[in-house]
Amino acid sequence: MSVTSVAEVVAQIGPPDAGAARKALERLDRLTKPPGSLGRLEELSVKLAGIFGSERPRLRDKTVIVAAGDHGVVAQGVTAYPQEVTAQMVANILAGGAAVSVMARQAGVRLVVVDAGVAGEVAAHPELRLASSGKGTADITQGPAMSRAQAQECVLAGVALASEAAEAGADLIGVGDMGIGNTTASSAIVAAVTGVTPEKTTGRGAGRSNVELDAKIEVVSRALAVNRPDPGDALDVLAKVGGFEIGLLAGVILGGAAARRAVVLDGFITAAAALIACGLAPAAGDYCFASHRSVERGHRVALRWLRLRPLLSLRMRLGEGTGAVLAMGLLDAAAACLREMATFEEAAVSGRGE
Amino acid sequence: MSVTSVAEVVAQIGPPDAGAARKALERLDRLTKPPGSLGRLEELSVKLAGIFGSERPRLRDKTVIVAAGDHGVVAQGVTAYPQEVTAQMVANILAGGAAVSVMARQAGVRLVVVDAGVAGEVAAHPELRLASSGKGTADITQGPAMSRAQAQECVLAGVALASEAAEAGADLIGVGDMGIGNTTASSAIVAAVTGVTPEKTTGRGAGRSNVELDAKIEVVSRALAVNRPDPGDALDVLAKVGGFEIGLLAGVILGGAAARRAVVLDGFITAAAALIACGLAPAAGDYCFASHRSVERGHRVALRWLRLRPLLSLRMRLGEGTGAVLAMGLLDAAAACLREMATFEEAAVSGRGE
Repeated sequence: MSVTSVAEVVAQIGPPDAGAARKALERLDRLTKPPGSLGRLEELSVKLAGIFGSERPRLRDKTVIVAAGDHGVVAQGVTAYPQEVTAQMVANILAGGAAVSVMARQAGVRLVVVDAGVAGEVAAHPELRLASSGKGTADITQGPAMSRAQAQECVLAGVALASEAAEAGADLIGVGDMGIGNTTASSAIVAAVTGVTPEKTTGRGAGRSNVELDAKIEVVSRALAVNRPDPGDALDVLAKVGGFEIGLLAGVILGGAAARRAVVLDGFITAAAALIACGLAPAAGDYCFASHRSVERGHRVALRWLRLRPLLSLRMRLGEGTGAVLAMGLLDAAAACLREMATFEEAAVSGRGE
Repeated sequence: MSVTSVAEVVAQIGPPDAGAARKALERLDRLTKPPGSLGRLEELSVKLAGIFGSERPRLRDKTVIVAAGDHGVVAQGVTAYPQEVTAQMVANILAGGAAVSVMARQAGVRLVVVDAGVAGEVAAHPELRLASSGKGTADITQGPAMSRAQAQECVLAGVALASEAAEAGADLIGVGDMGIGNTTASSAIVAAVTGVTPEKTTGRGAGRSNVELDAKIEVVSRALAVNRPDPGDALDVLAKVGGFEIGLLAGVILGGAAARRAVVLDGFITAAAALIACGLAPAAGDYCFASHRSVERGHRVALRWLRLRPLLSLRMRLGEGTGAVLAMGLLDAAAACLREMATFEEAAVSGRGE
């Protein structure tokens, strides 16, 4: 799919197949297990049936798209690591040494790494995808992060990458982030969209002390006061207080939903991206799975707004798509049970003595 | 390992390698991620390092041992399904149609199915392992489930199966159960070992109404009153109110620990087996991982006693080893990160600006 406007991709996102979901629900109770005993895996399998339009969904390949970008707000001293780490970690992910590289390799997940707007020099690598909308965003305490045109540009870049992954056979599309400073932008997005105060959407990120946290909350509050993003206009929120990688990931979510693929969110930053995506197209949420709940404070706020319940709660706070990759195994298992388990009749197993 | 007494296998269980665990802990903080950001995966990886005696543990094969047995207590009307389902489900598991069959296939986990004491006729199958200690236990409301000699026999059968799996290359050994009536026996074991009342150790199993639950609690109370199991003597608890498959799985746990392998528990029944195993050899718990918390009431009580925190909480209540298979992917990921991630130095990534 090649689209030239955000409205075009939004128009392509339809509802999941309710008939297939209903058939899946009926099938679940004929399978050789006590009704409901697979717990949340049953709910996952029904959602997958709706997305893929089959009561016996087959999941082919898995891909995680990791977008990197830098944030001008690091000038406000909100981060524990220097900005150069974004570019260094992109190289590390590509070289196979980052957590997401290791996990994806282990789990048979294809890894796509994108420069969505890194400030520093990213070492050339044959696998690196270039979709940069700028050398890092502007400082959101001084004005908007980016122009509205740039916001559209990074979203459309994400749509294109999701379409490409879907066409290459990916049925599960995970999203992951890398960007020093991006928890600050995400806290601002979550506060802007949900109306919850920055105190409740801002966490430590990779930082440490309470003093630093208070300063970070103040930075987020200032960014919102200076920019006054319009909560009813997701592109405005993205342009005013977002980030290039966040916009690109919002586009991946939209593109995945338009292609009728299952989109697996990661942690806090990808939840902020999902708020942007669902602000543009509420139906996109029907294609999203929340892989885990991180310890980052605003993640819970964002997931509640998205009405998504996380599958894992392992006190992770790394990003990169690590949670998304971990949860893909659970989605695989859910689909496989629905697809391959025998019914009571097929297996000649007695039902309940009613 | 071929052992002829429970005392012999208990004597072979040593502590994990504290030096390797300490080195793993140090290595974790040199890896390219904020300290602690992999959350509980870090704790898992350190435990695996201790078990396998390496700061970079390599996990080879994965096996789940599913033991089936019947329970005389079904005569008291505690179950929703007829007893014949145990034998039918053994056939279904072997034929590949049960949930654990599907999940194990999907996740590349070898499945070993054992008749530990099924009452009905189990259809012959080349893959079925026979280690039956009787055609189902006796009704625990009337007297002991089995003799002390039978209790030793089923534990030793489990030890042998674990040793065999370990010798065949299994580094992760999961345990799973199948047995109509075995939540009743497990509730009695958990109450006997922990001293918690049957009201708090007894759940619905595959049953339905509150009336049935009250009757089941009464049955568990009666079994304890009639048998008076000695909480200080785990073999006595097993013989008085246990089950053949529970004893066999306790043996798998002991055998896995003796072979220095990681043992992955499943739900409530395998937690009861772990209480027996750890009653015999407290150090066995150092080799155990709690895969998930089921909705079965007493599971929480048992895990607290075992001091194990479950990794998943997906409202499952199926048994068969399904939770164990699901969690193996998380253990794989934890070990892989510790083993394969680059250090800050190797990747030339800048550390925190201190």
